[in-house]
Amino acid sequence: MDSTDLTRRQLAVATGSMAAAAALPATPAAAASAPAAAPAPAPAPAAAPRSTADRQTCLAVARALLVLDENDRPLVPAYEKILLGGGLPKAPSAPKKVLVLGAGPAGLAAAALLKRAGHRVTVVEANGNRAGGRIKTFRTGGHENAAQPFADPKQYAEAGAMRIPGSHPLVIGLIDKLGIERRPFHYIDSGPDGKPRYRTWIRVNGISTRRADYARNPRAINRSFGVPKAYENVPAADIVRAALDPVRDEYSTRRPDGTRVDKPMPERLEGWARVVRRFGDWSMYRFLTEYAGLDERTIDLVGTLENMTSRLPLSFLHTFISQSLISPGTAFYELTGGTAVLVDALLDQVRDEVRFDRRVTRIETRDEGDRVVVETVSEGRGGKVVRERFTGDAAIVTIPFSGLRHVQISARVSYGKRRAIQEVHYDSATKVLLEFSRRWWEFDEDDWRRELDAIEPGLYDAYRKDQVERDGRMLGRHPSVPAGHLSEAQRTHYAANAWVSRDQPEAAGVIGGGSVTDNPNRFMFNPSHPVPGSAGGVVLASYSWADDARRWDAYDDEARYALALRGMQEVYGRRLEVFFTGVGRTQSWQRDPYAYGEASVLLPGQHTEILLDMRTPEGPLHFAGCHTSVKPAWIEGALESAVRAALEVHGAEVRSERGV
Amino acid sequence: MDSTDLTRRQLAVATGSMAAAAALPATPAAAASAPAAAPAPAPAPAAAPRSTADRQTCLAVARALLVLDENDRPLVPAYEKILLGGGLPKAPSAPKKVLVLGAGPAGLAAAALLKRAGHRVTVVEANGNRAGGRIKTFRTGGHENAAQPFADPKQYAEAGAMRIPGSHPLVIGLIDKLGIERRPFHYIDSGPDGKPRYRTWIRVNGISTRRADYARNPRAINRSFGVPKAYENVPAADIVRAALDPVRDEYSTRRPDGTRVDKPMPERLEGWARVVRRFGDWSMYRFLTEYAGLDERTIDLVGTLENMTSRLPLSFLHTFISQSLISPGTAFYELTGGTAVLVDALLDQVRDEVRFDRRVTRIETRDEGDRVVVETVSEGRGGKVVRERFTGDAAIVTIPFSGLRHVQISARVSYGKRRAIQEVHYDSATKVLLEFSRRWWEFDEDDWRRELDAIEPGLYDAYRKDQVERDGRMLGRHPSVPAGHLSEAQRTHYAANAWVSRDQPEAAGVIGGGSVTDNPNRFMFNPSHPVPGSAGGVVLASYSWADDARRWDAYDDEARYALALRGMQEVYGRRLEVFFTGVGRTQSWQRDPYAYGEASVLLPGQHTEILLDMRTPEGPLHFAGCHTSVKPAWIEGALESAVRAALEVHGAEVRSERGV
Repeated sequence: MDSTDLTRRQLAVATGSMAAAAALPATPAAAASAPAAAPAPAPAPAAAPRSTADRQTCLAVARALLVLDENDRPLVPAYEKILLGGGLPKAPSAPKKVLVLGAGPAGLAAAALLKRAGHRVTVVEANGNRAGGRIKTFRTGGHENAAQPFADPKQYAEAGAMRIPGSHPLVIGLIDKLGIERRPFHYIDSGPDGKPRYRTWIRVNGISTRRADYARNPRAINRSFGVPKAYENVPAADIVRAALDPVRDEYSTRRPDGTRVDKPMPERLEGWARVVRRFGDWSMYRFLTEYAGLDERTIDLVGTLENMTSRLPLSFLHTFISQSLISPGTAFYELTGGTAVLVDALLDQVRDEVRFDRRVTRIETRDEGDRVVVETVSEGRGGKVVRERFTGDAAIVTIPFSGLRHVQISARVSYGKRRAIQEVHYDSATKVLLEFSRRWWEFDEDDWRRELDAIEPGLYDAYRKDQVERDGRMLGRHPSVPAGHLSEAQRTHYAANAWVSRDQPEAAGVIGGGSVTDNPNRFMFNPSHPVPGSAGGVVLASYSWADDARRWDAYDDEARYALALRGMQEVYGRRLEVFFTGVGRTQSWQRDPYAYGEASVLLPGQHTEILLDMRTPEGPLHFAGCHTSVKPAWIEGALESAVRAALEVHGAEVRSERGV
Repeated sequence: MDSTDLTRRQLAVATGSMAAAAALPATPAAAASAPAAAPAPAPAPAAAPRSTADRQTCLAVARALLVLDENDRPLVPAYEKILLGGGLPKAPSAPKKVLVLGAGPAGLAAAALLKRAGHRVTVVEANGNRAGGRIKTFRTGGHENAAQPFADPKQYAEAGAMRIPGSHPLVIGLIDKLGIERRPFHYIDSGPDGKPRYRTWIRVNGISTRRADYARNPRAINRSFGVPKAYENVPAADIVRAALDPVRDEYSTRRPDGTRVDKPMPERLEGWARVVRRFGDWSMYRFLTEYAGLDERTIDLVGTLENMTSRLPLSFLHTFISQSLISPGTAFYELTGGTAVLVDALLDQVRDEVRFDRRVTRIETRDEGDRVVVETVSEGRGGKVVRERFTGDAAIVTIPFSGLRHVQISARVSYGKRRAIQEVHYDSATKVLLEFSRRWWEFDEDDWRRELDAIEPGLYDAYRKDQVERDGRMLGRHPSVPAGHLSEAQRTHYAANAWVSRDQPEAAGVIGGGSVTDNPNRFMFNPSHPVPGSAGGVVLASYSWADDARRWDAYDDEARYALALRGMQEVYGRRLEVFFTGVGRTQSWQRDPYAYGEASVLLPGQHTEILLDMRTPEGPLHFAGCHTSVKPAWIEGALESAVRAALEVHGAEVRSERGV
C-alpha cells in the first residue's frame, strides 16, 4: 500500500477518533442479520448463510467466559467460599470413590476438596516424581526432590507459570490462604521504588531503543517497518488499543482518562455474546486486516512488538480475551521460591492419595459396579514396567485433550467431546533460561568497567572497540563464574554462534522487566528480585509461542543455549558472555510428554464449535483443567474448573449470588 | 444447524448443480471491487478496503505458481533442457567460486549444474553423513552408510518423500535420465492387475467401511458426523470437489465426463490471478464456511476423510493448489530401493564438493574480495568440535527459512526477506513406521486361519472370540518374527497400550493403498510392492500433519510405536500383533534439527505478502529449495528452484518458449 494512500479508518486510528466510526452493530439482532462476508457482485455462494453459531451458543460461551451460571449469576463468589473457606457444601449422597487423572493444579485442588468432603480419592499422575503440570520450577529439592539445576545451588527459574495476575481471585486467595509469600512480578522493569521505568530494550530491524523512548518517539522504529505515514508517530500499543476499542465498547465503557469500566449485567453478558457472535470464527489476522483495516506493514509492527505475530492465524477471541480481561494496570505476582511452592502446598493436602509414575492408557466406563476403570502403565525408568488398574465411582479427567487423544476411551462419549479431543488446538510455547554469575542487566557503565577490567585491565575498552578474540576464551571468564560447567566443545559451539557486531549497546541498567526483539529470542525477561545469597541470576533469554516457539523446538535442549546467548548478545552486547556460567535450562511445552502443548489456544470457530463440549460430563467422567475454562494457561482457569468438577462429582448444587 | 434447514447452496451441492451458482466474479476488475467482507448494517470499519494484495502481486504469484517468466512464457521446457539435457547455457562471465548451503535435492542439483558449467563449487551440509534433506530412506548402507534400521536387513521405508507425481516433469525426467528404476506407488490399493480396488478401510466414529462401499453408500458414515440430510448420501470427496469447482472454473473447463482441461494462456494465468486475489488471505476454514457455505458437521466429515482438518487454519491456496495441480487421475511413482537412491545418484556428481558436518552459523557479504563468507561449526559427535570458514563469489542458500532464522546474516538483506525468514509458516508432519514379518494386510481369512493356527491350534478362533490373553505374550509370536527385538519392558508397554475391543474386522486383503481413521494415526499406507527376498513389510502406520502431527511430537520416538500399533489394531484388528517384529522407526519433521519442519505451508496472506520475497537474490546471495517455489514439500519444486538459482549465479538468461 502506498503510504500516501490512507483510508479513512487509518486516519481515524492515527487521530484517535476511531472508536465511534468502528462501532459494532448496536444490537444483537442487527449483528445476527449481518452476514460476515458479502462480496457485492458475487451472487449466491458468498451470500449464503454462515455456519456461525446461533445466539444461544454465543450467550453460553459468554457465560463461560464471565464464569456465570445458567441464570447469569456469577459463580466465582461461591467458588471462593468453597475453595478458600468452608469446602464443598453438604452433599446429598454417600461418599464416593473418585479417581482424579492428572496432578496439576486442577487435579490437586479438586482432589483436596473431595477428600475434605469425605470422599475416597486417588490421584493418578504419569510423571514419575513431579506434580504441578505446567507449574514447573527448575529448582533444587522441592517435593520432586530435583537435582541442582544451575551452577549456583540457590538459583531457580520458571519453566512454566511465572506470573499471577492480581485480578485472579481464586489463585490469589489460595496463595494467601496457604500462607505462601508472594511479591510483585515486574512485567515492566522498575526502579528501586518499584515504579515502572520502561528502560528495557526494543530491538527490531537492526534498531535499538528503550521502551520509554519508543513511547515518546516511535518514528524510527515504525518507519523501519515501512508503515504508512499516518502511523509513523503512533506507538504500537496504541494502534492495537484503537483497533480493539470498538469491540471493548460492546461490554465496557471508556472513561475520559482512557481506563475502562465494565457495563453492569446483563448488558455486559449481552455485549460479550455479540463479540463472540461477530468474531467467533475470525482469526486475529482477519480482524486486523478486515475489521481494523490495517495494512501488512502495520500488522507486522504491532505483531512484532506486541507479541501477536505468531498467533495471527489463531482465534481472534483468544488474544482479544487475554488482552481484555487483564487490563494494562493489572499487578502481577510471583511466589518466593518459585511457583512450584504452590504445588508443594497443594500436594501436602493429598500426598498419600497421589500415585506417581502411572500413565493412563485406557478409560472404561461400566453401567454397574465400579463405574470407571482406568488402566495405567509405568515408565519403568531403570526398573520393571508395571501395569496398574484403578477403579472408582467417578473420575475427574484433567489430562490435556492433546494427550487424551492417545488414551483409549472405551465409553459412550458424545460426538462433541470426541471431536474436541481430536481437534482442539494446543499451542507451542518454549522457554530458554540462561544463568549468569552477576546481574549484569542491572549494571551501569561504571559497573561494567569495574567488572570487566577486574578480569583483565583494558577489557572494558577492548569490548567497546570490538578488539576481543572471538575464539570463546572470554566465555564465563569473570572470576565469579564457578569452574566446571563449560567444556571445550561447548566453548567452541558458543564461539561459533556468538553474535558478531561492532556495536556495543549502552548498559541496560534495569531491574526486572523484559526486552523485545525480532531475533529468534523474541521476548526476554530479567528476574524481578535477587535470590537471597546469590549475586547472579537466571534470565529468561527467550520466551516464544506458536511458530516462534517451533523454530526452537527443532533443536535439542543443548543446542538452544548457544543460540539463546547469541540473541541476548544482539540486544545487550557481546560482553555479557563473561558472566555466563555455561548452564542453561529449557522447556518446550509442545515436546513435553506430560503436557502435550502449552495450552488450548483455540482456532477460529473453536470457541463456539468445541469449547462448551469440553467440560460437559460423560456419564461418570467429569472434565477439569484450564482447557475446560476460558482461561487456558492460567492457574485461575484450572482452579475454576477444579471447583466445578468437584461439585459435579460431589453432587451438590452451588448457590450463586446476584451481582458481582 | 438443523438438518432440515438447508441453504440453496447445500441443495446445489447435493444435487451437483453448484458450479454455476457459485461462479466467481467474472473479471478481475469485478473481483477487485468486491470487498471480502461488508456486514450490511455495520458502517465504516468492515467496509474499509482490505489489505489484499494488488493485481500485479497476484499476477506475479500466479506466474510463480504456473512457472512462467515475466513475459508469461513457460519456464519448465527451458529448465528441462538444462537439467536433463545440455546443462547451463554458455555464460558471459568467468567461472565463479560458489558456495551451496544445504545438500538436499535443490542444493545437489544446483551444485551439479554449476560444476558442469565450470564453476568451483562447495556444498556445505550440517548433517554429519547424510545428504538429501527431506528425502530420507530408513535403509541399510546407502551413501550415508546407515546401520540396519529394521529386523529384516532387506527392509527399508521412507521417512520423507515417498511418492512422485507423474505430472512433475523435472523430477521424473531426472530419475529417468539417471537410469533409476521407478514403479507405481499405489496411493489407492490395487489388485494384482495394478488397477485400483478401493478396499482399504475408512474407520471413523466407531464405524468401519471399505472405500468402495463408502463411495457407493456414504450414508452411515456421513450420518455419524450428523451432517444435514442433503449431504447424507454425498461422498466426502464429491462435497469437496463441488466446493472447489467454481474456483477451478476460473482457470480450467470442466468436460462433460467431469475431468478438467486447463484454459489456454493467458486466460489460465488471469484466472489463477483472480483466485489469488479473491482468496489469497483466506484460510481453508473460512472458504468452507463462508464461500462454500458448509456447516461444521459437514466440514468435520470432509476434513476427517480428506485430510483437511489439521490444515483448516492454514492458507486456502495451499490446499487448493495441492488438490488442483495434481488431478485425481495422476499416477504416482516410487523408486526401487527407496527415494534416497535419487540422492545417491545426485551426490555421485558432486561427492568431492560436499563438506558434511558443517552447520552454518553466520553468513556475511562483502563489497570487495570474496563477496560471501560463511562460518560453520561441526557437531563434534564423539570428536573435537571444529569451526570452518568458507568463502565464495556467490552462495545459493537452500536452508529452510525456519532454520535460517537461527543463522546470523551479516548482510544487507531486504525487509521482505527478513520478514519471510521470521514469519513464513512451516508445518509439522510426522510418520511412524512399523515392521511386520508378514504382509498380513494382503491376507484373506484363510491366510489368517492358517498363519494363526500355525502359532497355536485354535488361535484364529480365539482372536475372533476375544479370548486371547492381554498380557503381551502374543506380540511377535509368529515363528517368522526374528527373536531379540522385544524386551520384556516393551512387551508390557505394548500390552498396556493395545487396543481393547471385542470386534475383529474382516481381513483387509489389499495390496498397497491406505486407510483413513479418526484415531491419532489418521492415515496409514501399506507398501505398494514387496521387498524382494522378504516376506514381511514396513507399514506407514501413521502419517499426519499440523495439529495431528503435534499430538505425536510430544512423545519421544520410542513411545510412539506402541501407540501407533494400537491405532492399527483399531482399524485392522488386534491379531496383527503376532507379526510385529518389535521394530519401528519414526520421523517428526518438526523436531528434525536439519529440516526444521515439514515444508513451508503458508498461512492466509503469506502467498501475496511473503512468497515472492523468498526467492529474490540479496546481492551475492541466491535462494533455492522447495520453499522458494509454489510446490513446497515436492522434489519438483526443489528442482525448479535449483535451475533458477544456478542460472542466476551463472549469469545467463534462459530462453523461454511460447506455448506449453
